[in-house]
Amino acid sequence: MRNINEHTITAAVLDRLSDCGDPRLKEILSSLVRHLHDFAREVKLTEAEWMAGIDYLTATGQKCDGKRQEFILLSDTLGLSTLVVAQNHAKSAQATEATVFGPFHVPGAPRLPLGGDMSGGAVGEPLFVDATVRGRDGEPVADAEVDVWEADAEGFYDVQRAGLDAPQGRAVFRTDAQGRLWFRGVLPVAYPIPTDGPVGTMLNATGRHPWRPAHVHFMIRAPGYQTLITHVFRDGDPYLDSDAVFGVRSSLIGDYERHEAGPAPDGSAQAGPFHALSFGFVLEPAG
Amino acid sequence: MRNINEHTITAAVLDRLSDCGDPRLKEILSSLVRHLHDFAREVKLTEAEWMAGIDYLTATGQKCDGKRQEFILLSDTLGLSTLVVAQNHAKSAQATEATVFGPFHVPGAPRLPLGGDMSGGAVGEPLFVDATVRGRDGEPVADAEVDVWEADAEGFYDVQRAGLDAPQGRAVFRTDAQGRLWFRGVLPVAYPIPTDGPVGTMLNATGRHPWRPAHVHFMIRAPGYQTLITHVFRDGDPYLDSDAVFGVRSSLIGDYERHEAGPAPDGSAQAGPFHALSFGFVLEPAG
Repeated sequence: MRNINEHTITAAVLDRLSDCGDPRLKEILSSLVRHLHDFAREVKLTEAEWMAGIDYLTATGQKCDGKRQEFILLSDTLGLSTLVVAQNHAKSAQATEATVFGPFHVPGAPRLPLGGDMSGGAVGEPLFVDATVRGRDGEPVADAEVDVWEADAEGFYDVQRAGLDAPQGRAVFRTDAQGRLWFRGVLPVAYPIPTDGPVGTMLNATGRHPWRPAHVHFMIRAPGYQTLITHVFRDGDPYLDSDAVFGVRSSLIGDYERHEAGPAPDGSAQAGPFHALSFGFVLEPAG
Repeated sequence: MRNINEHTITAAVLDRLSDCGDPRLKEILSSLVRHLHDFAREVKLTEAEWMAGIDYLTATGQKCDGKRQEFILLSDTLGLSTLVVAQNHAKSAQATEATVFGPFHVPGAPRLPLGGDMSGGAVGEPLFVDATVRGRDGEPVADAEVDVWEADAEGFYDVQRAGLDAPQGRAVFRTDAQGRLWFRGVLPVAYPIPTDGPVGTMLNATGRHPWRPAHVHFMIRAPGYQTLITHVFRDGDPYLDSDAVFGVRSSLIGDYERHEAGPAPDGSAQAGPFHALSFGFVLEPAG
């Protein structure tokens, strides 16, 4: 095909995909091409703007490394992550809602016993979490693998701190026979997502703030149940209604109860204020 | 805003762009978000597919370096480049048509005198080009800057060859007072675009061939005229109707005339076959 113009190009590309042997890939790519072309026609994208887009995507890819995923951050801030999570988790009313995965999970976090301190020395006021993992009918889920990660009191995940040689603010626990889980961490605070890369450039250019309300991340896996990827947000946070990545769900807001110095849930004597969170997770059956 | 679902997310993101002080950026990003979301909803993108997309874009960005632009190649193979070029060059019938820029241009190519050999030792049968640069009313365009680049007889641009320490197959010339331009290069051949990166993975997965019909690239700049970025394709090439990047225009097909050994246009005696191309470029006035 020759002499393709801005109107005939879409059919030409779709035709080129006609030999694709994978029907799902063909469906996805065909839809992507149609929407990409519609976008470029709709705004009458100029060549200089196209080149700026090429440079932007290139810089986004090059900002990624083993500890940083700028494309996930871009997807999060453009609302794509929340859209994908929402349309794949139409659950029963009882099950705990999912929210965005985010760019800060690290596989292979330390496995700690119940009651362990996941802070790893991270700065912050102590937080004592007591949670249950149950199925939809109330049955306890024993031996569920619970991956927990959080930022410290300065708003940084360990992977954002240069020179750390051990994990901070992340651990993997297993529930006991009653589906219970308890551990120590630090009180999460609101923090800005990283703004030193292309996503920060976009937020700045569009007049958007980079803040996320305080939260702790959970990923809970157990045989016979759907994996749950979620957060527990902190009640009263000023950014609950303007989360930079659109992830807040009312059902995921927890009461991080403040206590003055004194005896803590783990029996220790705390010399300063500490916080206690109770939360019940409900898993959806698999399949 | 809380409890956003896959249907309400689009309005939530657009609302977040309401403070954007740059109206054009706001227009482009709003359209992009709408189409990106429509795409994800239309195919009901799963979380695993989303992650595959994140990984694909990351790999594409990381394949780019000073000599390789994988996002341009992706744009080319998805037809976006041709669309953008076409919608920005609705020219008068007389002007030479534009086509895709491609990923292989390098700024700062050697400046050669008219008659110079741009091959730099690249393998290939000699090609003698004799061209004119004129305005729409036939006036010669003197002192136009003509950037020329091409692959060698094995289908490689110099930037694709490791260990080369000088440019091959690229040069910048200036037209003479009559708008004429002549130089020596090598006969272009059809070649596959690079398939060792994410774009190759996409072509392979969709059953598409990677071939481009033989061509020489030209970028012509002169004060008072629109910059022309184009190719001259080689008549008879088997890929003229299935260019992997959708760039062929009938008006850009040239006659690369084959000659047996003997005297060449530059007065030299050629011991083997050589080729001669004449082509007339017509520039559109600026503004």
